[in-house]
Amino acid sequence: MLQYLTCGESHGKYLMAILEGMPSGLKLDSSYINDELLRRQRGYGRGERMSIEEDHVEIISGCLKGETTGAPIGLLLENKNFTIDSLPPLFRPRPGHADLAGALKYREEIRSILERASARETAMRVATGAVAKRLVSEFGAGLVSHVVQIGHVSVPKKPLSFDEIGEKVKTSILNCAFPQAERDMIHAIDLARKRKDTLGGTFEVIVRGVPPGLGSHVHYLRKLDGRIAQSLMSVQAIKAVEFGLGRDYAETPGHLAHDEIFYNRTRGYFRKSNRAGGIEGGMSNGADIVVRATMKPIATLGKPLRSVDVRTKRPMLADFERADICAVPAASVIGEAACAFEIARAMCEKFGGDSLSEMKRNFRGYLAQLRHS
Amino acid sequence: MLQYLTCGESHGKYLMAILEGMPSGLKLDSSYINDELLRRQRGYGRGERMSIEEDHVEIISGCLKGETTGAPIGLLLENKNFTIDSLPPLFRPRPGHADLAGALKYREEIRSILERASARETAMRVATGAVAKRLVSEFGAGLVSHVVQIGHVSVPKKPLSFDEIGEKVKTSILNCAFPQAERDMIHAIDLARKRKDTLGGTFEVIVRGVPPGLGSHVHYLRKLDGRIAQSLMSVQAIKAVEFGLGRDYAETPGHLAHDEIFYNRTRGYFRKSNRAGGIEGGMSNGADIVVRATMKPIATLGKPLRSVDVRTKRPMLADFERADICAVPAASVIGEAACAFEIARAMCEKFGGDSLSEMKRNFRGYLAQLRHS
Amino acid sequence: MLQYLTCGESHGKYLMAILEGMPSGLKLDSSYINDELLRRQRGYGRGERMSIEEDHVEIISGCLKGETTGAPIGLLLENKNFTIDSLPPLFRPRPGHADLAGALKYREEIRSILERASARETAMRVATGAVAKRLVSEFGAGLVSHVVQIGHVSVPKKPLSFDEIGEKVKTSILNCAFPQAERDMIHAIDLARKRKDTLGGTFEVIVRGVPPGLGSHVHYLRKLDGRIAQSLMSVQAIKAVEFGLGRDYAETPGHLAHDEIFYNRTRGYFRKSNRAGGIEGGMSNGADIVVRATMKPIATLGKPLRSVDVRTKRPMLADFERADICAVPAASVIGEAACAFEIARAMCEKFGGDSLSEMKRNFRGYLAQLRHS
Amino acid sequence: MLQYLTCGESHGKYLMAILEGMPSGLKLDSSYINDELLRRQRGYGRGERMSIEEDHVEIISGCLKGETTGAPIGLLLENKNFTIDSLPPLFRPRPGHADLAGALKYREEIRSILERASARETAMRVATGAVAKRLVSEFGAGLVSHVVQIGHVSVPKKPLSFDEIGEKVKTSILNCAFPQAERDMIHAIDLARKRKDTLGGTFEVIVRGVPPGLGSHVHYLRKLDGRIAQSLMSVQAIKAVEFGLGRDYAETPGHLAHDEIFYNRTRGYFRKSNRAGGIEGGMSNGADIVVRATMKPIATLGKPLRSVDVRTKRPMLADFERADICAVPAASVIGEAACAFEIARAMCEKFGGDSLSEMKRNFRGYLAQLRHS
Repeated sequence: MLQYLTCGESHGKYLMAILEGMPSGLKLDSSYINDELLRRQRGYGRGERMSIEEDHVEIISGCLKGETTGAPIGLLLENKNFTIDSLPPLFRPRPGHADLAGALKYREEIRSILERASARETAMRVATGAVAKRLVSEFGAGLVSHVVQIGHVSVPKKPLSFDEIGEKVKTSILNCAFPQAERDMIHAIDLARKRKDTLGGTFEVIVRGVPPGLGSHVHYLRKLDGRIAQSLMSVQAIKAVEFGLGRDYAETPGHLAHDEIFYNRTRGYFRKSNRAGGIEGGMSNGADIVVRATMKPIATLGKPLRSVDVRTKRPMLADFERADICAVPAASVIGEAACAFEIARAMCEKFGGDSLSEMKRNFRGYLAQLRHS
Repeated sequence: MLQYLTCGESHGKYLMAILEGMPSGLKLDSSYINDELLRRQRGYGRGERMSIEEDHVEIISGCLKGETTGAPIGLLLENKNFTIDSLPPLFRPRPGHADLAGALKYREEIRSILERASARETAMRVATGAVAKRLVSEFGAGLVSHVVQIGHVSVPKKPLSFDEIGEKVKTSILNCAFPQAERDMIHAIDLARKRKDTLGGTFEVIVRGVPPGLGSHVHYLRKLDGRIAQSLMSVQAIKAVEFGLGRDYAETPGHLAHDEIFYNRTRGYFRKSNRAGGIEGGMSNGADIVVRATMKPIATLGKPLRSVDVRTKRPMLADFERADICAVPAASVIGEAACAFEIARAMCEKFGGDSLSEMKRNFRGYLAQLRHS
Repeated sequence: MLQYLTCGESHGKYLMAILEGMPSGLKLDSSYINDELLRRQRGYGRGERMSIEEDHVEIISGCLKGETTGAPIGLLLENKNFTIDSLPPLFRPRPGHADLAGALKYREEIRSILERASARETAMRVATGAVAKRLVSEFGAGLVSHVVQIGHVSVPKKPLSFDEIGEKVKTSILNCAFPQAERDMIHAIDLARKRKDTLGGTFEVIVRGVPPGLGSHVHYLRKLDGRIAQSLMSVQAIKAVEFGLGRDYAETPGHLAHDEIFYNRTRGYFRKSNRAGGIEGGMSNGADIVVRATMKPIATLGKPLRSVDVRTKRPMLADFERADICAVPAASVIGEAACAFEIARAMCEKFGGDSLSEMKRNFRGYLAQLRHS
Repeated sequence: MLQYLTCGESHGKYLMAILEGMPSGLKLDSSYINDELLRRQRGYGRGERMSIEEDHVEIISGCLKGETTGAPIGLLLENKNFTIDSLPPLFRPRPGHADLAGALKYREEIRSILERASARETAMRVATGAVAKRLVSEFGAGLVSHVVQIGHVSVPKKPLSFDEIGEKVKTSILNCAFPQAERDMIHAIDLARKRKDTLGGTFEVIVRGVPPGLGSHVHYLRKLDGRIAQSLMSVQAIKAVEFGLGRDYAETPGHLAHDEIFYNRTRGYFRKSNRAGGIEGGMSNGADIVVRATMKPIATLGKPLRSVDVRTKRPMLADFERADICAVPAASVIGEAACAFEIARAMCEKFGGDSLSEMKRNFRGYLAQLRHS
């Protein structure tokens, strides 16, 4: 029942979100959300706007004295770049964007499409995701994201632990946990910038500490992987989503594709591998949830692609709006938020409860049940 | 507003589905649905059950004299293998299945989890998808699927047209459009069978004839790619979903990653490439929608994996239930159905209407609007 | 997340329902459901069909060995009167029915509208409601319904207790708890029959044993009274829904309109009156939920009303289909089912949990919390 | 698919709403919304706050140059009375309010419950309803509301036309269309004020110009009366909802309870009566939709009711917060908004379309279809 709506245009006065269904009693302050927003804004390869504008969200409802009350949480973010009323109309749709299909669908001038389709909207997804992260953290769960590929540069196959990744990305300007790969990525970005080109890439989100049994196999809309896939694929520019071995499952034989089951007193049931990415039968299985998403290169190019003027139908170069070279680090933060929301939603469904203390009591009851299963 | 629920267990008496929200006036008979069910059952690499049991669905409501009435469509499929009451309990969860997480979550014996989690349920997804396909076909749209990888065997990169694929898969026992690749795939399956192993793979679904503007950029739950991703990822054993260039976007530079826009009188706006897989900004852009999904190898192995007896907690080999070696061809048919449903749902939303004739009138109005845009 | 769909036509082969979201571990057998269906079929004033046809539902999924498994519950009811294919078309819409608006909306012949709009569909609402009743009974809650008015005959204002009502209606052929009123109602029905007329009336549903805090004030779609109102108003022929004092609130001054709050050790917070009908601020307040609904008279009259032939547009008398004189007793059973579903849904949301034992554990935790509040 | 969320507390900094799913191309400015907000604030019998604080909503997204764009519409209303952080806690729950059940459910102090449960929230329902009204007005539909009872004073049974009501309420300080009744109502309110008492009442909402076929009989959640009932019943303090004859159906015999069907060239199908309140079989039938709702008296009394201090559990008088005597006129405006939203939602579903011009084209097509039916 956890749900949210966002609104706001890229250069409008405000962005807003309403997050409905959070339990009461969760400590929450805007600085936590703003830290996440800052994470989204950073990243080598971003254009000018990002550097000048630091987002600050205001919690305008659903919180009293620093704790949620159970009422809908309103988040308000003032755009410093509030120029929508004076921006010129656009007539040359950019390939790779919502511009053309949106203008045709809504019978709108391209500007009004672009203002909503812009990745600026993801600020509110990060903000709501931050609240979700706060919630899941109360249950001992945590999320981390890191960039695993930009252009032709991939990180080594060597897996790092959740904590290592969390530690390493702190000092990375690309949210990358491998310093050598990061250097190569920076180089690739510099090269792309020189060529007035852009770069896409792949990031990974890991959710640790989720108990087995979130999501369900009984109905397709309850499957946790399906929900996370929707959430991630709906992030601007995301074109691929994979769990665990993902694409590589195609060439992995069955006897190497699954995670054998073990048991000991201390850990209960456990696995020695995590090829499934923590999800079996549409449910969390207790292992880390590991999901990767691939982002296409920014579609607004310094050297614009060919397009058509929608008034004259004559060939023209596409409009040029903004100048990020690579936004994969930002996308990784957004993807983390998108996952956090789905985990929080699944937890609210599984554990019910209207207050954090009730939800925790139900959660502890479930953990005890698991221990005796 | 188009929605459905399915129910039924793998060895229960019936599988059922209720599809709610279809317009009236659509010609529909069970033979069309049964043909799709047959497509799902075929495929080299399937176990014994598939060969003996031909599914027949009965349309038990929502149709009068061969046409839908607007009322919910009830689909009933009698299981020939109705043995659920006499099947033994299971105690050794199979890695890669819902068995363990499901048993823990629902406090159920493994049998009752497996009976619902089984891919048998996908028969009803194919059945509802078949109805959806009938609907979208009325609007000139069509779907085709084909297997592009099994194990290490991939089809050539050379793209085939929608019609070529549709033609070629007709004579393929693997729903594969490339005869040489098919032979190699068959060989790989034979080898896996010999080794008591299983194989996964990748299939592609193509939707042709969808107008620009299905889905929307305005709200994340309206994005067509997000919805299709959820629908596909929620199919049993699917672990990756990609649109267009998909994973390869990571290493494709921006100037080669998008589809430039052209216009001529006859075609209106058009593209010469389709890297986006037909979706930009969460909307169909008028090009073919191209989506690929990767299936993990069947988790029930002839040479069972290590597991634990849930009663004694002692190490045991996993239970063995059934013996498909490779179900990627079946998955491709199911994936096609899953996509068909989402296309139909998006069309019902976009064009409204309660009768097929009203929906078509609205559709034609939109096409005319597009022509004058 | 508890949800259901129904399908089936009045004279079709089957009626079906799929109930999705029930916890595992609930004892359930078809005889319990069939008893409720029988309650729906009884009642003085019904036509011929009711007396000959005893409904039997088969639980075709979601249950194993007499207990739910968490999987969707499929309910199948075979219509003994399966004549839909041979029934003649209809051309004279009946005032007060879906006939005309439905035929215009769906471009359908009246028969296909009537077959779905018919109150026959309520059999499946009773069946799903019966499962819901089973669930809520596990939490100490119970429902009872009784007829409080038919035509001009009302029951005395004297309130009976939940148990008294439950006891008294057992021997009533009108589901009425007041024998004298029942006799007068029977007389009124006999008179109406003689006049080829029909009668409406009002029934009351009481839900006992619901803890405070089902539903919520925070969002309009979470309000329990709003949900129950939708559920009841969507039952065929229901035209008014009231909680507690209902319409009489209009003329009750504030100081007599609310339920003062008291407290003692044994009972915790309690009230000495129940004007609110157990709901304050969109939430259960711990008192009995008391809701009344008014049903219009059956719209198919022995002496048909004026209508129009839809082919010729000439004035004609309306088609005549069936011959109940008064269905308020049946409606009261249906209303009880509709309420039971909403209570069960609210409980599933509030207490979460996938198994009955988990849900009960969460429930007990909440009760303990209440005791210490 | 039209949906909205609201957030905000009674004495918080802002109230907000996000309305998602509106078509593009609808002229919209805040003055129209503010006029509706003003209507909500007026009314003899209101307390001090109402008179000092004039609400002004700002449209912060989803509109460009005075027209909707299809993007979510954000509405922001600054509370002049932003004191929430300094307001004292409350410990004596008011009977008739969410106070006690809410505090128990959410483990919250009463203040945080009351701040959200307060009717202040309805400002945003009126704001979103105003946008909905703008939409339906484009299709020739309109809404009017009027107060029909306050305390023991009812308006005469003599029905007025839609236009007459609209005209008469303009000059009424009680949104009442009958001047003599209004005078008596004012007198009743004055008397109640003197007695430190409060008054409830009943209002009626009429929707004119809705074509037949909104809503549907096929599925209970599609029934238009069920949806309107939910929407109205979820408005603060509403306890009864009735369509057409409503409660009086109970004593109206069948031959006087329905609306016979006529036809002529000019009007098509029509009725000479409107007992059904414009809805048959869960669908609009083309006649005015007429729905009445009853509001209980304000639960905050000048002479407080008995309650309990939640800290000590000792008997105490209830907290006193605010001092309206009668808010039925305001409720009628809110009810109008609640209905407008449901009509708009049903229209969006029925006519589809992303732009107003597309929706109108589809609408015209349907009207032409009706004319030829």
